[in-house]
Amino acid sequence: MANSRFEYVKHFEQVDNLLPNTWVVVRIDGRGFTKLCSKYDFEKPNDRRALDLMNAAAKAVMTDLPDITIAYGVSDEYSFVFHKTCNLFERRASKIVSTIVSTFTAYYVYLWPTYFQDQPLSLPLPSFDGRAVCYPSVQNLRDYMSWRQVDCHINNLYNTTFWSLVQLGGMDAKEAENLLKGTLAADKNEILFSKFSINYNNEPEIFKKGSVVYRDYELVEPGSHDVAKEADELAEPVQQSKTQSENDKKRRAKARVLVDHVDIIKDDFWERRPWLLSNKPGKIPKQT
Amino acid sequence: MANSRFEYVKHFEQVDNLLPNTWVVVRIDGRGFTKLCSKYDFEKPNDRRALDLMNAAAKAVMTDLPDITIAYGVSDEYSFVFHKTCNLFERRASKIVSTIVSTFTAYYVYLWPTYFQDQPLSLPLPSFDGRAVCYPSVQNLRDYMSWRQVDCHINNLYNTTFWSLVQLGGMDAKEAENLLKGTLAADKNEILFSKFSINYNNEPEIFKKGSVVYRDYELVEPGSHDVAKEADELAEPVQQSKTQSENDKKRRAKARVLVDHVDIIKDDFWERRPWLLSNKPGKIPKQT
Amino acid sequence: MANSRFEYVKHFEQVDNLLPNTWVVVRIDGRGFTKLCSKYDFEKPNDRRALDLMNAAAKAVMTDLPDITIAYGVSDEYSFVFHKTCNLFERRASKIVSTIVSTFTAYYVYLWPTYFQDQPLSLPLPSFDGRAVCYPSVQNLRDYMSWRQVDCHINNLYNTTFWSLVQLGGMDAKEAENLLKGTLAADKNEILFSKFSINYNNEPEIFKKGSVVYRDYELVEPGSHDVAKEADELAEPVQQSKTQSENDKKRRAKARVLVDHVDIIKDDFWERRPWLLSNKPGKIPKQT
Amino acid sequence: MANSRFEYVKHFEQVDNLLPNTWVVVRIDGRGFTKLCSKYDFEKPNDRRALDLMNAAAKAVMTDLPDITIAYGVSDEYSFVFHKTCNLFERRASKIVSTIVSTFTAYYVYLWPTYFQDQPLSLPLPSFDGRAVCYPSVQNLRDYMSWRQVDCHINNLYNTTFWSLVQLGGMDAKEAENLLKGTLAADKNEILFSKFSINYNNEPEIFKKGSVVYRDYELVEPGSHDVAKEADELAEPVQQSKTQSENDKKRRAKARVLVDHVDIIKDDFWERRPWLLSNKPGKIPKQT
Repeated sequence: MANSRFEYVKHFEQVDNLLPNTWVVVRIDGRGFTKLCSKYDFEKPNDRRALDLMNAAAKAVMTDLPDITIAYGVSDEYSFVFHKTCNLFERRASKIVSTIVSTFTAYYVYLWPTYFQDQPLSLPLPSFDGRAVCYPSVQNLRDYMSWRQVDCHINNLYNTTFWSLVQLGGMDAKEAENLLKGTLAADKNEILFSKFSINYNNEPEIFKKGSVVYRDYELVEPGSHDVAKEADELAEPVQQSKTQSENDKKRRAKARVLVDHVDIIKDDFWERRPWLLSNKPGKIPKQT
Repeated sequence: MANSRFEYVKHFEQVDNLLPNTWVVVRIDGRGFTKLCSKYDFEKPNDRRALDLMNAAAKAVMTDLPDITIAYGVSDEYSFVFHKTCNLFERRASKIVSTIVSTFTAYYVYLWPTYFQDQPLSLPLPSFDGRAVCYPSVQNLRDYMSWRQVDCHINNLYNTTFWSLVQLGGMDAKEAENLLKGTLAADKNEILFSKFSINYNNEPEIFKKGSVVYRDYELVEPGSHDVAKEADELAEPVQQSKTQSENDKKRRAKARVLVDHVDIIKDDFWERRPWLLSNKPGKIPKQT
Repeated sequence: MANSRFEYVKHFEQVDNLLPNTWVVVRIDGRGFTKLCSKYDFEKPNDRRALDLMNAAAKAVMTDLPDITIAYGVSDEYSFVFHKTCNLFERRASKIVSTIVSTFTAYYVYLWPTYFQDQPLSLPLPSFDGRAVCYPSVQNLRDYMSWRQVDCHINNLYNTTFWSLVQLGGMDAKEAENLLKGTLAADKNEILFSKFSINYNNEPEIFKKGSVVYRDYELVEPGSHDVAKEADELAEPVQQSKTQSENDKKRRAKARVLVDHVDIIKDDFWERRPWLLSNKPGKIPKQT
Repeated sequence: MANSRFEYVKHFEQVDNLLPNTWVVVRIDGRGFTKLCSKYDFEKPNDRRALDLMNAAAKAVMTDLPDITIAYGVSDEYSFVFHKTCNLFERRASKIVSTIVSTFTAYYVYLWPTYFQDQPLSLPLPSFDGRAVCYPSVQNLRDYMSWRQVDCHINNLYNTTFWSLVQLGGMDAKEAENLLKGTLAADKNEILFSKFSINYNNEPEIFKKGSVVYRDYELVEPGSHDVAKEADELAEPVQQSKTQSENDKKRRAKARVLVDHVDIIKDDFWERRPWLLSNKPGKIPKQT
């Protein structure tokens, strides 16, 4: 075949398979979103339309890629989690990351007009970058998720206070920054309450907690069995019969993909939703 | 800081910097485009609108990311080349790949209505995956580019003949496939000519050669100096003065990004466009 | 400094840190040991001197590198295990592998005359290669160890039967090979017993089980607590006080490094020796 | 087969092939050689026996592994270079590094008594670690080699002056260190000459230049052809006939492995020895 003289170049591609039996987290981040925020006049400290668009795109990614078990988003970033037994694309890092980033971007651009009716996109377009990280144990995975949610909390409390000082208190950015330097959470709560009568606890959950996306099955009584231990003990992908595997697929397809704004740091969230760690679809809740 | 207990999870991210002083090629491929083709009734063997959309997206990527020196596209794939001295994102593979894939996807979805006015996108949306490969020498890089263009030629000749047999010759797919089994290029040319009076040489260049995208400067007399040798001898990024670097940037921004359909296998293409291998912007051609 | 012009070459070294919180197994293999066996007239199917030399070298490696928690050897291979929390050399793969291979080789060559008094080494010298593999869970690690021990058993039963047929039964290699083709373990046991009155169960444990090397502390009643679970739940290196860390170090230094020939597939071995999975040194047994 | 239940653990081994068509440098370093120096009373600033032992081990490594084209050693480190077309062990990094480290260590320990007759080795034994680095162009490779030789020069000039001040000038280490702080090469030369009548230029070449190891063929007139360019232009391993390949092998085996102490920074060294960059064995010099 005429092509063969050049085909040797294929051998320069290097293998980048992710370690088996580890949780894979793909985190994507908006590129240059500070500029984007000001270009499209995003509200400060949080723009509800922008967050809803991020969540809609994440939901679509989870629907297109049923291998994702849970996702967590805050601001212009989103983390997608694959179960440790997942073998999508033979776990090739670049294929997994690029697919998620591309799918997310496609929906973000496509759905933009739904959320920003009066502000059509113009060049240059928004885009995202991404990376994959492996976590060996359930605790590592949960600590990763907790890290992002704590980050959400810290940033949101800071931003809420900062922008109150600027928007309601008439300070300029420099003054607000200086005032907040070295303050603790309690101090910021106090500033919000005493100066602006804002009770931070009453702020919308989506701002305080970020957004968790997952398939919705019937909740389970916590403490009934130790899913984390079972997940950690898993050594290799479960061998399923074809029927079983088809059943799982169907149940996943039937399940509603839910966007939630709840605490994912405490055990309760995970114990009530054992399917997140076990990768076994739960019961579809009766429709009400 | 409250966050610190979880921050250790950052250390699980593994470094993926690409080897310095090598040409970086990022190739992206449409995911499941066979389905897409039939969903939107792409013309066979080539859909001009689809190719124009690919090229428009590639052009936009090159404009947004001036570090790309040349790109080559065929069918639903595109290869983007970074000069060996490029240090974009400290050469982190996942960051480079995800940025290109995301930017390309954003433009593909955004520009879709321009090229498919009567066929609005519907779910699931088109997406792309990508990977980065390093090529140490100019010859390796050129062989990669040649490999893709030879592939374009082989596939296009086959597809043109196959679809002529089906569309004009009334065969079904199986019959056409059987007829073509084991045929050489000359045989296919002969079939096209004798059965359908099609001279393959007169087919549109965009179908036969694919699409090359690059910044357009004044062409140079071939043979004047050995750019390939100079490029191979380069050992580390050239140290430029800030003024020089700013000048280069301006010239790149001024240059027109061109979509061309020409032979990139022979030396001539590369010798007339020394900036592709040297990374030094050429002269902006006088406007005519 | 005059050196700086060339120092850029340092940046070509690529990072190869192993994923944190995973068990690291470094396996080394003799290079070209088939030739070596015949050059020094190793006894077939097992040469006790050669195995003792391997074990002595492995023991020395574990003494020089106290971070190793357990090692397992069979034939001309040895696997060294680092606890998942180990941070030796910042977990750089090439540094860990090369250090173990080098230390093992040094002792192998140095101790050779002790075990082969009448056969001095001559050129070319014996050497080993090595590689590091990460295992995320206790079960993965134990399955790796079991894999090697099952391999030892299968090979040894085969070799014992094969060499009995040749050495005692007067067959040539081809005949013995043909006879054994397709036989099961029971068949080989039967051949050994009926033809040569050899009860395989009475063969030396070192041949049947291979060699396990570890620090010897007081055994613990199995079932008292779930070390595997605790190990799996560990998320990051335990923060120890300096005193605690010094104590551990001293206890490790005091502990006898033991070479054992026992079953490491069943739970019992691991439950009685919790320090292997917990990385906490046990009690030094009273001397008798 | 009984073994199969555990065999899945093999899939955890990750691929680590080095990029094709790049020069591979494996550098090994003595581990804890400061201690070793004082344990065996190495002479300061240079111990001729220790250097001769390093060189003898390096020579043996090159003889055992004919794929190595050149090696350079200084102090307790040695760099081994594989030609860019070399495909040894399919270029698996851990296999290449561990093999070199192991072979080097074996000879170092084995040959120790030849060079240190009165000081038998005792525990703990000397060992080495290693790493592989890829260099895409001839210039990168030569800059790496130059970097090591400049390092040799800088360190040796410093050490020679430092130890003269201590051994001949009666200073203690602190005083000598302070005196040398901030001095340039010229200053050190001056100190050596004015205080101790030592002309640094007359110091032994092995101390000033380090040691280069390579196969010795007939030297070639420099400038006759551009080997560096040819090497850079090479895109893939040369396809040789079996006869040609056997011939090369024989010539390599016949060639004397030479330990030299010469300048490898200037072009002259490389131009006179084109086989180092071309990988084509030269003419065996007539014996004299």
